[in-house]
Amino acid sequence: MKLTDMTLTAFSDLLASDAPAPGGGSAAALGGALGTALTGMVASLTVGKKKYAEHEELMQEIIAGAEAVRRQFVDVIARDTEAFNGVSAVFTMPKDTDGQKAARKQAMQQALQACTLTPFEMMCCALSALELTGRALGKSNTNAASDLGVAALNLKAAVQGAWLNILINISGIEDQEFVAKYRSEGEAILAKALPLADHIYETVLSSL
Amino acid sequence: MKLTDMTLTAFSDLLASDAPAPGGGSAAALGGALGTALTGMVASLTVGKKKYAEHEELMQEIIAGAEAVRRQFVDVIARDTEAFNGVSAVFTMPKDTDGQKAARKQAMQQALQACTLTPFEMMCCALSALELTGRALGKSNTNAASDLGVAALNLKAAVQGAWLNILINISGIEDQEFVAKYRSEGEAILAKALPLADHIYETVLSSL
Repeated sequence: MKLTDMTLTAFSDLLASDAPAPGGGSAAALGGALGTALTGMVASLTVGKKKYAEHEELMQEIIAGAEAVRRQFVDVIARDTEAFNGVSAVFTMPKDTDGQKAARKQAMQQALQACTLTPFEMMCCALSALELTGRALGKSNTNAASDLGVAALNLKAAVQGAWLNILINISGIEDQEFVAKYRSEGEAILAKALPLADHIYETVLSSL
Repeated sequence: MKLTDMTLTAFSDLLASDAPAPGGGSAAALGGALGTALTGMVASLTVGKKKYAEHEELMQEIIAGAEAVRRQFVDVIARDTEAFNGVSAVFTMPKDTDGQKAARKQAMQQALQACTLTPFEMMCCALSALELTGRALGKSNTNAASDLGVAALNLKAAVQGAWLNILINISGIEDQEFVAKYRSEGEAILAKALPLADHIYETVLSSL
């Protein structure tokens, strides 16, 4: 069964089990999807209201943008677990001959790279969603202020959680060009995303 | 349909919609459930392994503790939205006579108090789960280190998200004793939970 077709209860049960996947990667993606959903919800609760009429166009942009990012986040929930399963599959490969050992090693390197790409995609999604959330700040329905704050908190957890998943996977990757690329691009995203998330949370907090 | 019986996709769709509930409260509870699930998973991936034999008893305690907290978090996902629906229901009450106005006002005060109790319960759950996560730190399967970090991140987002929900609801509550109680108890939980969550994340980060 596709992970995203599971009920919340069943997914939570499976996550808690001793099955190594789904794990933190898929959980981070789901958290990101929830955060992005809340940003879309807040914009949806703002459109069509006289008080916020001047921000109507912005809110429509935020709704459309959040919808696209949310769909990508939901999509990567299952893809991250599939990538992880690719690593597990390598452990079942034979390692009796030198040729088998070489094939196994190459497969592991490819699997670890795949496990780096899915959390990197989550980091990109989280930054996009945080930028949308930041644009909604101060211009959206104040009755839903706490929801905007929760969006930022979940997106911060998603970007940091994805980063931990990148770090644990690149520690086993030998291609140093690949490692350097994702380390520096990940750090660049964190440098933008974390202060933005904190700014949104602090602004909401001080408004309540 | 009960929220927790919805699929991940359907819940994400509903959260993103212009329905004001479910909102940030239920999303925070789900994030907390995911974080707690990961702590239980990490402990489950540690038991029965020679390398961690000395921590077997601790891990069994963490599994049992996380299971109880996770079930409470899952349970409060739906209850928080029900509490919010209680506020919405008050808006449908008649307000033509003085008696109706008084009944409406009293019902609103009760509904806002109910909407304070569910996020407060989440804060208590998140602190318990963070304490369990902290006990697993440095003693659990290092292959799942990133999962322990994601647990802490999700639990931090849950405790802060619940706090925003408390603040937005107590702003409308007239009973100042109630307000003071939940404000001070919430602040006390934050004072314990946030440094603990940061400590766990930083420790995991520096280990990767």
